[in-house]
Amino acid sequence: MNPRHHSLAEEKVFKDPVHKYIYVQDETIWNLINTREFQRLRRIRQLGTSYLTFHGAEHSRFSHSLGVYEITRKIISQFERGGYTDWPREERLVTLCAALLHDVGHGPFSHSIEQVFDTDHEEWTCRILLENTEINQVLRECDPSLPERVAAVICKTYNQPIVVSLISSQMDADRMDYLLRDAYYTGVNYGTFDLERILRVLRPYQGRIVVKESGMHAVEDYLMSRYQMYWQVYFHPVTRSSEIILRQIFRRARELYGGGYAFSWMIEPLRHLMEGTLDVENYLLLDEAMAQTAFTQWLKEEDSLLAELCTRFLNRKLYKYITMDNADEKLWQEIREQFQSIGLNPDYHLEIDFPYDMPYDVYRLGHDFMDKDERPPILLLGQDDRLSEISRKSDIIRSITGIHQGKYHLYYPEEPLLESAHLLSPHIRERFGLLL
Amino acid sequence: MNPRHHSLAEEKVFKDPVHKYIYVQDETIWNLINTREFQRLRRIRQLGTSYLTFHGAEHSRFSHSLGVYEITRKIISQFERGGYTDWPREERLVTLCAALLHDVGHGPFSHSIEQVFDTDHEEWTCRILLENTEINQVLRECDPSLPERVAAVICKTYNQPIVVSLISSQMDADRMDYLLRDAYYTGVNYGTFDLERILRVLRPYQGRIVVKESGMHAVEDYLMSRYQMYWQVYFHPVTRSSEIILRQIFRRARELYGGGYAFSWMIEPLRHLMEGTLDVENYLLLDEAMAQTAFTQWLKEEDSLLAELCTRFLNRKLYKYITMDNADEKLWQEIREQFQSIGLNPDYHLEIDFPYDMPYDVYRLGHDFMDKDERPPILLLGQDDRLSEISRKSDIIRSITGIHQGKYHLYYPEEPLLESAHLLSPHIRERFGLLL
Amino acid sequence: MNPRHHSLAEEKVFKDPVHKYIYVQDETIWNLINTREFQRLRRIRQLGTSYLTFHGAEHSRFSHSLGVYEITRKIISQFERGGYTDWPREERLVTLCAALLHDVGHGPFSHSIEQVFDTDHEEWTCRILLENTEINQVLRECDPSLPERVAAVICKTYNQPIVVSLISSQMDADRMDYLLRDAYYTGVNYGTFDLERILRVLRPYQGRIVVKESGMHAVEDYLMSRYQMYWQVYFHPVTRSSEIILRQIFRRARELYGGGYAFSWMIEPLRHLMEGTLDVENYLLLDEAMAQTAFTQWLKEEDSLLAELCTRFLNRKLYKYITMDNADEKLWQEIREQFQSIGLNPDYHLEIDFPYDMPYDVYRLGHDFMDKDERPPILLLGQDDRLSEISRKSDIIRSITGIHQGKYHLYYPEEPLLESAHLLSPHIRERFGLLL
Amino acid sequence: MNPRHHSLAEEKVFKDPVHKYIYVQDETIWNLINTREFQRLRRIRQLGTSYLTFHGAEHSRFSHSLGVYEITRKIISQFERGGYTDWPREERLVTLCAALLHDVGHGPFSHSIEQVFDTDHEEWTCRILLENTEINQVLRECDPSLPERVAAVICKTYNQPIVVSLISSQMDADRMDYLLRDAYYTGVNYGTFDLERILRVLRPYQGRIVVKESGMHAVEDYLMSRYQMYWQVYFHPVTRSSEIILRQIFRRARELYGGGYAFSWMIEPLRHLMEGTLDVENYLLLDEAMAQTAFTQWLKEEDSLLAELCTRFLNRKLYKYITMDNADEKLWQEIREQFQSIGLNPDYHLEIDFPYDMPYDVYRLGHDFMDKDERPPILLLGQDDRLSEISRKSDIIRSITGIHQGKYHLYYPEEPLLESAHLLSPHIRERFGLLL
Repeated sequence: MNPRHHSLAEEKVFKDPVHKYIYVQDETIWNLINTREFQRLRRIRQLGTSYLTFHGAEHSRFSHSLGVYEITRKIISQFERGGYTDWPREERLVTLCAALLHDVGHGPFSHSIEQVFDTDHEEWTCRILLENTEINQVLRECDPSLPERVAAVICKTYNQPIVVSLISSQMDADRMDYLLRDAYYTGVNYGTFDLERILRVLRPYQGRIVVKESGMHAVEDYLMSRYQMYWQVYFHPVTRSSEIILRQIFRRARELYGGGYAFSWMIEPLRHLMEGTLDVENYLLLDEAMAQTAFTQWLKEEDSLLAELCTRFLNRKLYKYITMDNADEKLWQEIREQFQSIGLNPDYHLEIDFPYDMPYDVYRLGHDFMDKDERPPILLLGQDDRLSEISRKSDIIRSITGIHQGKYHLYYPEEPLLESAHLLSPHIRERFGLLL
Repeated sequence: MNPRHHSLAEEKVFKDPVHKYIYVQDETIWNLINTREFQRLRRIRQLGTSYLTFHGAEHSRFSHSLGVYEITRKIISQFERGGYTDWPREERLVTLCAALLHDVGHGPFSHSIEQVFDTDHEEWTCRILLENTEINQVLRECDPSLPERVAAVICKTYNQPIVVSLISSQMDADRMDYLLRDAYYTGVNYGTFDLERILRVLRPYQGRIVVKESGMHAVEDYLMSRYQMYWQVYFHPVTRSSEIILRQIFRRARELYGGGYAFSWMIEPLRHLMEGTLDVENYLLLDEAMAQTAFTQWLKEEDSLLAELCTRFLNRKLYKYITMDNADEKLWQEIREQFQSIGLNPDYHLEIDFPYDMPYDVYRLGHDFMDKDERPPILLLGQDDRLSEISRKSDIIRSITGIHQGKYHLYYPEEPLLESAHLLSPHIRERFGLLL
Repeated sequence: MNPRHHSLAEEKVFKDPVHKYIYVQDETIWNLINTREFQRLRRIRQLGTSYLTFHGAEHSRFSHSLGVYEITRKIISQFERGGYTDWPREERLVTLCAALLHDVGHGPFSHSIEQVFDTDHEEWTCRILLENTEINQVLRECDPSLPERVAAVICKTYNQPIVVSLISSQMDADRMDYLLRDAYYTGVNYGTFDLERILRVLRPYQGRIVVKESGMHAVEDYLMSRYQMYWQVYFHPVTRSSEIILRQIFRRARELYGGGYAFSWMIEPLRHLMEGTLDVENYLLLDEAMAQTAFTQWLKEEDSLLAELCTRFLNRKLYKYITMDNADEKLWQEIREQFQSIGLNPDYHLEIDFPYDMPYDVYRLGHDFMDKDERPPILLLGQDDRLSEISRKSDIIRSITGIHQGKYHLYYPEEPLLESAHLLSPHIRERFGLLL
Repeated sequence: MNPRHHSLAEEKVFKDPVHKYIYVQDETIWNLINTREFQRLRRIRQLGTSYLTFHGAEHSRFSHSLGVYEITRKIISQFERGGYTDWPREERLVTLCAALLHDVGHGPFSHSIEQVFDTDHEEWTCRILLENTEINQVLRECDPSLPERVAAVICKTYNQPIVVSLISSQMDADRMDYLLRDAYYTGVNYGTFDLERILRVLRPYQGRIVVKESGMHAVEDYLMSRYQMYWQVYFHPVTRSSEIILRQIFRRARELYGGGYAFSWMIEPLRHLMEGTLDVENYLLLDEAMAQTAFTQWLKEEDSLLAELCTRFLNRKLYKYITMDNADEKLWQEIREQFQSIGLNPDYHLEIDFPYDMPYDVYRLGHDFMDKDERPPILLLGQDDRLSEISRKSDIIRSITGIHQGKYHLYYPEEPLLESAHLLSPHIRERFGLLL
């Protein structure tokens, strides 16, 4: 495979608010962007329900995927200009394809849907790469082994770990783009860090990407941005509340469907989702437009719980929350009972959320945030060519490594509690700030 | 009506990328934002199909409506601080409501749908204000006359012209927000101008909003931003192409529906749209999610033309275009015939577009861009308290007033032409840049 | 004293890159800006010699002083709008004057000159406020007690501690402006934080400025910006090197002067500086233009050491440095001796710098960075009206409180070492990275 | 000469607020930056006295020179990547040197000093390149012909016109940098345009730099930025006032010097300036620090006129101005006489300024703003490889080409007129807005 044969006669550009321009030089990349599977990402939001908290966060996975591609392109092009022999030049195209396509398997409101239906976007990504799709065809036309190779990079089984680490590590192109992009669209300025400087200090070194020691402060800044974005954007309690409602809509629909309930309105791909019989064809028809259309139709569904949840989601009548310092099973049980006593359904009207019952540090050795699997740590390359794990050099990173913060939040609908406050026991009323 | 009675105990804020923060101080404004009709604007994009040209332009009319409100709030608050007697203080709340709600009647992909179905978003806005809606209820609770007054401002029949001109004039809060916002989300930097300076030089004066003469250069800058945004964003030929496809989808669907065609998939609000029997209830269910879901379902519709158009729109296989300097009816007729001869349907596969067959100047006396009705000109207030129309003072504005630029574009599907190029006459081939 | 009597007929504005605009509404403020003592701040750089490291950092104390005034004005105006009774409204003007004038006593390259000549800019500020100056006259015209009151605020002896804390505390207007401004002019983006949000969460409370608890993350972000600015800008080793050279120029000149040396060129205010006989009149003539002119004249001074140091400073031939992990008196002594043996003067050609032998934490309870005196800690105001010191609530601040980082740097001229490397002992050569 | 031999082992970077980073890859460029003549540019402001109007505009010619170098480097590197045969690759280093050094001959407050003493910075630039300087030595060490070649580029006599046009044309690297940089430091946002896009559409073509036709709107935007910067920054009447005062200080000093006046304070390079006997050595000692030190010393000069002018400049007590629509010699003569009658010196206390009595269009065929010599027009390169002068294609540029705006301003000291208003004739009083 010789990527030079596939250069576009003229470079294409996309105007991008985060990177100014995104440059496409390879015909394969251009063709991938124009497939139906990639264009579908325009109908899947990058930040799920966050737009209900930060109204500007309406950007799609399409934008983000282009951004990850562009950062990867810049890193590789700097490696090539620098003439580093530790960078395997023949991996350029497979790396760019993996960067562009790494999110192509995301469904609508991914995190919520995956929890309820136990699907996995990475698995779908691989199926889209390998089964009968336009993407598969474009990749195969370039090189018959390309679909498998790109899938291997995304599944982290590729035989060149340096390629994997560009797409998936503590400082990969994915995170760098989403921090900057999410900060731009939400309008917060916590996520900004000096991308240009970080790109300048990355080096390919013995099968991994490392950071020149002089770039340590830039990495600190990047990790602090991440910390701020997690707490101020990704874990925002209003966003958590909307995710809970969304999850409950899917849970309720599946429950009803399983019980043979006759929906007043249904659509094919959703039916397959609930039956667990989705194939690639139907999976690709699932997008956020379809999910929202279903919610709109269910606003008047006979099942009042489903109708209520859809109303809450579409009209943004979210659950409120109270905060608790520690887990108190007894209290929770009592609350459940009192909720039941005033006609609420605690399985749906009460949700205890501890956003951090997952590996959650901003930076932790061998672990990482929101990932089921470990990601390699950040290594500094000293002037003496020795590698050091960054928290050994940086006091600030050592300090924040392993910080566990977080509290329990109880989410619940406020209106019925206000109405029935007089029926609750005094100390439960006090907990929920209710006055008679 | 005394708006002081309705002040929120604590100011609410929205984080906004364009204005940093949006401040809500009135209970009525807060309640309006939380109505289902206003929340629906989250499902209607501000720039219609522009996201197919500028992938960042995925922002909604919800964001823009908050922005117009915020600019209006700032202007009024400056008028109040300045103690200008020409500003009628009792109009504050009605003005803020009109600013917030001026776009509430927009449907999905408004410009396209209005052309095909001959609806009018301003009319729908008034119906939503006046009929049985949550918005109507919130307004009435504040003051029974408020729905009618707000509607009058939006329809430009209000008895206080100064209020109308804040919402709708050559330099209204609507335009100021959309130029800045569209520039931010597309990522172009043409739309930026010094909003803070413009706000500082606005003055209420004898029933209109005028500009202190010292602010002339800031207004020039604003008008030049407008000029650049029109030509580089709003009239971008790729966006025009996607609007054409979209219009044709709606046209084809209506044509089929009128002919009694049995759609494999249909949904209630769309049926009413095609029958011309929409009421407010169904209109509010129409949003871009629903339109896109319909297109997804029609991808395999039996009518191959509808299926093709939906494929083109969803997968972004847009029409190409060629440019012509002037109208040449004879040539167009010839092209139509040749298109027909190779099996194309010129009613759908050929569209001649002259984006400027409307009053179109960036700034024109007594007329305005994209408006069916005239908007008052920009007046400068001299130190001697005399008013001058701005193009009398500014050489640059005088120079650009009345510039007519624009060319005819012919949009068409490229693939069939490439396939049947050998069947076309040589000079038509040449026109379309086709080689044998 | 009723400041309303002194309102300007029309608000004045300054265009400012950091705050967009700076608004002046009081005649006294306007007149203070136009005094010769305040205009002199245009000839004193805000960041001393940092422009030799960051070429953009050429901004003056004039800009910064306006910025501190503007932030203070915004805070007070928000306190007044909020109607907080804990803010003493009658202190508005004295606070604004103190904000504007707090740096008026700075001399050229303050930190260096103060170390060599043992002067103190705060003392000079008070003398300029209280002695026969245009500033004193403007203040007295407004209110005879104003000079003393403003001086008391700046010296932190004022009887309203809340006023002092606006000008001088862990989160005062001074720091907020300099972090943003220095970041803007150097071009680094570490110093940016969300000023608008911080201003929104400040509250006057029982004689101090506190932060609403919901603003904790914004404060974390501000403290992290400070941390990054200290290490990446203020303590940059190249800047330290230029400060060392500068200090040595002053030391050498004073030494020569004390020894009766006949300078080929001298100027009155410098003579007074060296004699320790500066009065306000001569102090005000001292500025960076004069210091640089002296250095230009001394380029050919007969004393070769002084000439060399001036050449180094003006032509940016700075000292190099090597890093040491810990204090090793024996090694230092050896280096001194070897330097002497090759004709260097270790009193001038060798300087050991530990930038952190001062209270230096980014945030420390009861202490503060670069301050000889303690500053009050940051207090969070909970919803229950209880105050908590911020590091008790914020894990991240607790983590970084008390971090001690820093290494010893040895600064020296590189050229003579390269020339005489063969005369040095091998392990000293190795220390300095010299090859034969 | 083979520049590859001179590549630095490791790329050097400067942090720059406008371009983020400035990259140095050639040893010669690095060495030139470190010469004393180039370092001297740190003591010469880019915008002369503009900092008295826009307090942020304190940036130096050093910053700007690095910026021009960086833009030129980017253009050349894009030409090289694009493989355009019309770009003579062997001219890379000479072009970069010329870009870096084109302003090295500027003296303090150049425009003012050149008018009074009839010097020419371009001539001094060539002398600094060709005579006995560190710059000359660095260039010669690289290639003995380099000093002459670089000087030829700067004097526009070089035999490769394409090299000259990169440094000096309607859209050269010089202007592109100064518009962006001056906008950044003043804080106005008029000067911003999309540099990245403009760089992408530049092409070397038959001995000139042209613009791809698709970049026309970007060029329009650049020309509009220029227009705004001229009227809102460069021609700001307050800046003109400070330039007038400055010129008069120099005029008065020269007049006194010529008359044998005994200055209480003088310094060698200034003496040579007044005698017209400056050589390169003394010219290089002249900088703005020295000029300001002289003004400080002359504050108490026996000649009261010189003392007054210095006071005005240093303490920013500038002349006021009135505006006149057209030239009225008779009125001017009358004003002169009346000024004389109240003890003013009309040669110094009255200056009529028409900033536009120079070739002044923002864009004019064959002419250009603030240039004594013509600069080549901007040419668009069509898809058919034909060139068109841009105003033939762009309505907006055609509209503004040749706009002549501008009014006469009369500058004068306000204080004496206020004092002696009763001695002036009524219609002169009226002209100057004086009330009895």
